[in-house]
Amino acid sequence: MNKAALYTGNQNFEIKEVKPKVPGEGQVRIKVSHCGICGTDLHIFHGKMDARVSIPQPIGHEMSGIITEIGDEVDGLTVGDRVVVRPLDWCGECPACKNGFTHICQKLKFLGIDTPGAFQSHWSVPARVVHKIPDSIPMDIAALIEPLAVACHDLRIAEAKSGEYAVVLGGGPIGMLIAMTARHQGLRVLLSEINPVRLALAAEIGIDTINPKEQDLVKTVWKNTGNAGADIVFEATATQAAASVMTELPRCRGRIVTVGIFSQPPQIDLFKFFWRELQLRGARVYEEADYETAIEMAAQNTLPLDKLITRVYPLEQIQQAFESLENNANAMKVLVQCSK
Amino acid sequence: MNKAALYTGNQNFEIKEVKPKVPGEGQVRIKVSHCGICGTDLHIFHGKMDARVSIPQPIGHEMSGIITEIGDEVDGLTVGDRVVVRPLDWCGECPACKNGFTHICQKLKFLGIDTPGAFQSHWSVPARVVHKIPDSIPMDIAALIEPLAVACHDLRIAEAKSGEYAVVLGGGPIGMLIAMTARHQGLRVLLSEINPVRLALAAEIGIDTINPKEQDLVKTVWKNTGNAGADIVFEATATQAAASVMTELPRCRGRIVTVGIFSQPPQIDLFKFFWRELQLRGARVYEEADYETAIEMAAQNTLPLDKLITRVYPLEQIQQAFESLENNANAMKVLVQCSK
Repeated sequence: MNKAALYTGNQNFEIKEVKPKVPGEGQVRIKVSHCGICGTDLHIFHGKMDARVSIPQPIGHEMSGIITEIGDEVDGLTVGDRVVVRPLDWCGECPACKNGFTHICQKLKFLGIDTPGAFQSHWSVPARVVHKIPDSIPMDIAALIEPLAVACHDLRIAEAKSGEYAVVLGGGPIGMLIAMTARHQGLRVLLSEINPVRLALAAEIGIDTINPKEQDLVKTVWKNTGNAGADIVFEATATQAAASVMTELPRCRGRIVTVGIFSQPPQIDLFKFFWRELQLRGARVYEEADYETAIEMAAQNTLPLDKLITRVYPLEQIQQAFESLENNANAMKVLVQCSK
Repeated sequence: MNKAALYTGNQNFEIKEVKPKVPGEGQVRIKVSHCGICGTDLHIFHGKMDARVSIPQPIGHEMSGIITEIGDEVDGLTVGDRVVVRPLDWCGECPACKNGFTHICQKLKFLGIDTPGAFQSHWSVPARVVHKIPDSIPMDIAALIEPLAVACHDLRIAEAKSGEYAVVLGGGPIGMLIAMTARHQGLRVLLSEINPVRLALAAEIGIDTINPKEQDLVKTVWKNTGNAGADIVFEATATQAAASVMTELPRCRGRIVTVGIFSQPPQIDLFKFFWRELQLRGARVYEEADYETAIEMAAQNTLPLDKLITRVYPLEQIQQAFESLENNANAMKVLVQCSK
């Protein structure tokens, strides 16, 4: 049988045995090992995305697992393959898809939001979004490949080059992964964060940090860059404070990548865009290549990804897992173990 | 002698005979023919840039003229050359200059703001920013090369390609020149403007227009592009209304070029940047190549640049020329004839 955590609305999950879905044509069934809780999952938990979620529904998409069944018309995958899923379902027909941007398809369905997700012991998904992972990546770490692919995409959108100076605004899971990835790619990195626990974690994994409430971020960046300014700024807080400071930091022709999801339009100093010919670039999810990069990085085992795992809960305790993240900026990644 | 219109502060000019400045090393003296009034000049006239202007001072920079004297160490220029001036003075030493972005030098001086300008019969400037123009360009039209170079720069920052669909928000002189240049470069163009006189002028020169107070701009753009969205949006109004609509128009990975100079930070829908991976690119003044393109375009005589000249005043009537532009969105380019 298949044990599923069904989001039933109103900050509630219900654990239920449901009949496992037989994988259809072009699909595979995966026995889910671990699945992380994303900011979007919390958003769903708070009822803010009920228009997109078909209640009751398992959610979740930051997962790892093993293929247990193969549908018709699937090539290149085998039962027993260790895998992660790129949780995107694109139409292939809209102008965005036809331009090659399937990850921002104009009718994009996100697996685990618009369709059932991975907080269940068995998950059936289209084979085209399944990526094999090597044995060297433990299953809990593999559940971080999805957010790591986000960071890889952000770096690629930034056209980040080795030796460049990057400022990351915000040390949540994504900000932390961007900082780690940027450093891994040879950039100099400064992470700006106000939470002492996050600052301590960043320092522990060797990332230069600044608390902008204690030190002058703008002066520090201009001093650190010999009065040139930062090459790249990653905005990963979705706050007005960061939206205000992000235009103060870049060099002439510097790039700002907007990663945080703003629910309200912040005020942005467009004069600075004019004066220094800045660029602002939106980044959303990932493309196939970002997943390949993320898997390669995880396989090399040089990033301290394990430090980002705050705690692992069994599927039966998913309710507590979500509640543990309520107003808890100290937590990084909380994982749910969906099967053993 | 040299007749100069000195800005004396507080919306006032004084016409005065002053001793002409002998061109120093690396400089030439130009007998100024025509000089247009830029939005920045109006800003100075209103006292808003007195911190940068050394009162009393001639201002003005959108000019045409003939070389009358050559200083030492000047190559490639001759007395009698018909010329325009790229009014930038860069340091060559700052990080921006060393990166090749001299036009946004961190210590950039703008001729006609930070140093004396062209509203005088004779103007001495560095030879390195003088561009020769062919005989086929009349002197009044040549005074439009500076704003035309702005438009060329904006198109280049946008990486505009023939066949793309561009929306220009705002039909002032720069918006109109962007629309004309974009069409000349093979783009499909829609100009959004609310002023009926500007709309009529745009229609007269063959540019497709829309009045967003009368028609739904967003729906029209998505309809015109087969539900793909605009490839490029040029924001040339510096208003909150345009800053709000500019994120509604572009396609996935579309580009917004911010041309208008915002004195206050507008609210910008960053969610749209995330959702469609939009890009916002600041554009300021021009580079050498933009001047060459603008001169070539003016020389071809295919753009109806003459339609943009609202009126020409003699230097003695510069006060009236500036006052004619007060709260007058109907006017396009007002020129001052500085010598005959």
